[in-house]
Amino acid sequence: MQYKAPIRDMKFVMHELLESTKHYQTIKDYTHIEADIVDSYLETAASFAENELSPLNMSGDAEGCHFEDGVVTTPKGFKEAYKQYCELGFTSLTAEEEFGGQNMPMSLNSAISEFMGTANWSFGMYPGLSEGCVSTLEHHGTDEQKNKYLPKLVEGTWTGVMCLTEPQCGSDLNLVRTKADPQEDGTYSIKGGKIWISAGEHDMSENIIHIVLARLPDAPAGTKGLSLFVVPKFMVNDDGSLGERNAVSCGSIEHKMGIKASATCVMNYDGATGFLIGEKNRGLNVMFTFMNVARIGTAIQGVTAAQFAFQGALEFAKERLAFRSLDGAKFPDKVADPIIVHPAVRDMLLTTKAFAEGGRALIGYMSQFADTVAKGEGDAQKYADQMLSLLTPIGKAFLTETGLEAAHHGVQAMGGSGFCTEYGLEQNVRDTTIACIYEGTTQIQALDLIGRKVLGSQGKLLANFTKVIQTFCEENQDNSEMGQFTRPLMRLIKEWGDLTSRIGMQATENPEAVGGAAVDYMYFSGYVTLAYLWARMALIAQTEIKNGNSEKEFYDAKMKTAQFYFAKILPRTSTHVQRIGTGVEPFMTMDIEQFAF
Amino acid sequence: MQYKAPIRDMKFVMHELLESTKHYQTIKDYTHIEADIVDSYLETAASFAENELSPLNMSGDAEGCHFEDGVVTTPKGFKEAYKQYCELGFTSLTAEEEFGGQNMPMSLNSAISEFMGTANWSFGMYPGLSEGCVSTLEHHGTDEQKNKYLPKLVEGTWTGVMCLTEPQCGSDLNLVRTKADPQEDGTYSIKGGKIWISAGEHDMSENIIHIVLARLPDAPAGTKGLSLFVVPKFMVNDDGSLGERNAVSCGSIEHKMGIKASATCVMNYDGATGFLIGEKNRGLNVMFTFMNVARIGTAIQGVTAAQFAFQGALEFAKERLAFRSLDGAKFPDKVADPIIVHPAVRDMLLTTKAFAEGGRALIGYMSQFADTVAKGEGDAQKYADQMLSLLTPIGKAFLTETGLEAAHHGVQAMGGSGFCTEYGLEQNVRDTTIACIYEGTTQIQALDLIGRKVLGSQGKLLANFTKVIQTFCEENQDNSEMGQFTRPLMRLIKEWGDLTSRIGMQATENPEAVGGAAVDYMYFSGYVTLAYLWARMALIAQTEIKNGNSEKEFYDAKMKTAQFYFAKILPRTSTHVQRIGTGVEPFMTMDIEQFAF
Repeated sequence: MQYKAPIRDMKFVMHELLESTKHYQTIKDYTHIEADIVDSYLETAASFAENELSPLNMSGDAEGCHFEDGVVTTPKGFKEAYKQYCELGFTSLTAEEEFGGQNMPMSLNSAISEFMGTANWSFGMYPGLSEGCVSTLEHHGTDEQKNKYLPKLVEGTWTGVMCLTEPQCGSDLNLVRTKADPQEDGTYSIKGGKIWISAGEHDMSENIIHIVLARLPDAPAGTKGLSLFVVPKFMVNDDGSLGERNAVSCGSIEHKMGIKASATCVMNYDGATGFLIGEKNRGLNVMFTFMNVARIGTAIQGVTAAQFAFQGALEFAKERLAFRSLDGAKFPDKVADPIIVHPAVRDMLLTTKAFAEGGRALIGYMSQFADTVAKGEGDAQKYADQMLSLLTPIGKAFLTETGLEAAHHGVQAMGGSGFCTEYGLEQNVRDTTIACIYEGTTQIQALDLIGRKVLGSQGKLLANFTKVIQTFCEENQDNSEMGQFTRPLMRLIKEWGDLTSRIGMQATENPEAVGGAAVDYMYFSGYVTLAYLWARMALIAQTEIKNGNSEKEFYDAKMKTAQFYFAKILPRTSTHVQRIGTGVEPFMTMDIEQFAF
Repeated sequence: MQYKAPIRDMKFVMHELLESTKHYQTIKDYTHIEADIVDSYLETAASFAENELSPLNMSGDAEGCHFEDGVVTTPKGFKEAYKQYCELGFTSLTAEEEFGGQNMPMSLNSAISEFMGTANWSFGMYPGLSEGCVSTLEHHGTDEQKNKYLPKLVEGTWTGVMCLTEPQCGSDLNLVRTKADPQEDGTYSIKGGKIWISAGEHDMSENIIHIVLARLPDAPAGTKGLSLFVVPKFMVNDDGSLGERNAVSCGSIEHKMGIKASATCVMNYDGATGFLIGEKNRGLNVMFTFMNVARIGTAIQGVTAAQFAFQGALEFAKERLAFRSLDGAKFPDKVADPIIVHPAVRDMLLTTKAFAEGGRALIGYMSQFADTVAKGEGDAQKYADQMLSLLTPIGKAFLTETGLEAAHHGVQAMGGSGFCTEYGLEQNVRDTTIACIYEGTTQIQALDLIGRKVLGSQGKLLANFTKVIQTFCEENQDNSEMGQFTRPLMRLIKEWGDLTSRIGMQATENPEAVGGAAVDYMYFSGYVTLAYLWARMALIAQTEIKNGNSEKEFYDAKMKTAQFYFAKILPRTSTHVQRIGTGVEPFMTMDIEQFAF
């Protein structure tokens, strides 16, 4: 499928819904960013995504990465596309000017990432991981480390990569075993193996900078004994030139369900030279800088999946002829009606549309808070940090799960054609399945949300957000047409609070109760969060239609999608409420041995 | 993953839940089938599935089928396995004795198909399609046709295949264009192209008998102008030997998301010689003989997906160590607890278990009705036909959709390992995605259920079934422990009736209402149907535990799974009820042009 970037809708989200220009005015570094600057970036990104990345999406999947003797070769065309990507400045977008960056906001980067990612998620993994490395070094590196690595990373000549997972530990970093032995020269000798290292080895850049989580000899057990190291593939001389090869090698690459053009590497560190980043035994805290950004990045994958599914299925549903509308022929001149006339097909299309556009709005909303966390000040920064902390697990888990659901609707709406590789819709399912797993599974995010964020703040982080929703509802209480949205929202935020109290109470009696409710609570939170954003989008649509905006069809479609969301998606909350109501016992009564067949 | 057949549970379903021996006593042809005969078949099938088919599952996926110059080569080992499959008599199981068959019941065949299909769904497609061909010829072929084709098909030397779909028509057979021109010798010249023909061409059998849907020159338009033809790949001489090659050729095979070892062929009929089966223009009626059986066959794929996911994820969840139970360490001697202690992981495991075992029960339940439809008599046959008509769309749509959901839980429970090909769980998702599409999509089944079956019978077919459920509840009203199941069931069958009336009323005002409610109605029906079967299984478990059965753990697990199903799965019905309540309008208000981005 030839990708077409949803530029109009992205502008709607950035300019109309989230008033980016006003937002950028609140952050010193960004006051110069006017709407036309944003638009110009969006258009360059859209054009690159459509013309350069989209054509490599299916061929990259078919070809995959190749591994031979420690060398990883990316699919045909990837190297050349990456060179262009660098030349267009996408690797330097958010980096600091001091190191050659453009110091542009995360919120713009998120928008661009969606375009790139929908066109070709595998490709986007390489620069995406690099951003994590840059951000970690910017925040925690020494001046020497920054000067040594950042300029090349920012221009894209080198790429960076984050190395956490080991064979015995994925989600639970307590179990990390990779060792870092201090050497007399102040460096560390890194020994151990990492797995599932995305972009750990490849042929697109001259050097690869590994950020490696490892344990000092005298470190305490668990996550409080983890330190972070920078381990370059090639040592870097003082003049910036490349020195000898470090003892870092790729042992193999994984064969996976999807994102086949993204190299997932087994990495071996055989006494590799590493340099400590940040304080000893504080590696996890350092890592969290990267993780929040990475989680927004992964949440975006959910939006890309929904957008891709919508776009592919839509084209098909308008063209494919089968049966007549139950209401009588809608296209009597054709041998049958296009399947878009059938309610069940519309259900799938509208669900993917509602998740894609609602998800786009949520990513924008989160990313603005991320802007303020990164570059804002004072109370605004503190508030943004709280909002982002709450929204990150919701965005990551909910958008990736609904993205996967949407990807399946895309296949299903196309029937047998969806199952065949030639349309690309099945690849979308395969690619996006990993989004629910990496950067913390749905289940881990759900625990983070209810446990650490909501109950851990005694409800404060949640109250911040429900107050925002309540204020919105109250501001529009005299707007009778908005009642269809504000009434259910008011009921839902009350229910959200009640659910939270109930789980908190249950937890005092049984600590498992939190784990038992977590996933349902995350879904409930996600559906309400998107409902709030859909209500805001409906308000804009209502206003623009009333004002006689010439793009009436666009706004009318927005309003109808909002109504669809409230009528057909929000009822899902009631199942989650009921499931939370039946408590944790139905999960726990079965003895481990009784799990059998 | 090495497959292990759930023999114990299959015996539970066949002997304890559905009392097969008693059931077989009611059908003349089957009165001789004692439990030990059933068990012996099950054990032979289990052993073959585990030892011969399971080892070819991942290799078959990796290798796929190959096409060159019209020749399709199946993956390494398939041909040899098929030879054994024939020798063990699996191709002849349900066929009539007159043609070398064993005249065994569909219900036994379904059980065996589950074992074969979980081990290797792609392999099972070849003999599965052949069964459809045999059944069509048995019911509608002339004596000459039967004598000519059936003996070789039944012994498996030849295989058969069903050819309906064309590029311009999948679900909507009104649009079939393949032509059948009558020849002077009484044969027909078949001209046209078919696509997505599973097992249309391959190297496992000496001849392939195509059952082709085509249109006579003077035929009325639409499905009332379709006739059915038998079109052999090689002509068959009067002495049964193979004659010249017919003008049937394979143009290519599809590249697909899954079931890659099953050849999905583009077939060309270039004036191929065909022979009419049944009456002219009655091809669709003839085809329905095959379709009901095929739909049970496809429903089984949903059960295989759930079983496979459960088995794979279970092994992993018991071994993989991550974090501690929120309730304190459960395995303090290990570095962390196995992930099966966590409620969210248990949720996924129990959901797959409940769908696998509940689905197995539903397949058994449907298949017994199929036995009676095929070989029963009088009122019993009529009643069975009504029950099967109602249950077929539920079984096909609900079990394949829940199977796909379960397949995803299997991947998710394994995290990154689930996404890697080496464990086979991701293949399970890819393979089972097609189950929701072929033999009538979920959406088509849903329309069939509410439209043709329920409303089309003025509610009679539904009333038959709700009466069965009501009787069960009433019979157990003094059993206080069963109240946890019978009370919700009584409420749900009332709700089922109310929903049906409501949709019927809506439909009198707006014919689209049926289409708008169909998918939700199907899910509601599926959840209630499985709830009924889980309640029956719980009753058996309760009784056996009370009677001091030595397999207490087995029955206790059954009871707990039933309780899980009622507590955590049944709440999904309320979302579907609410969605039906918001009517069809939210699907229909958007203009076709407004579906855009």
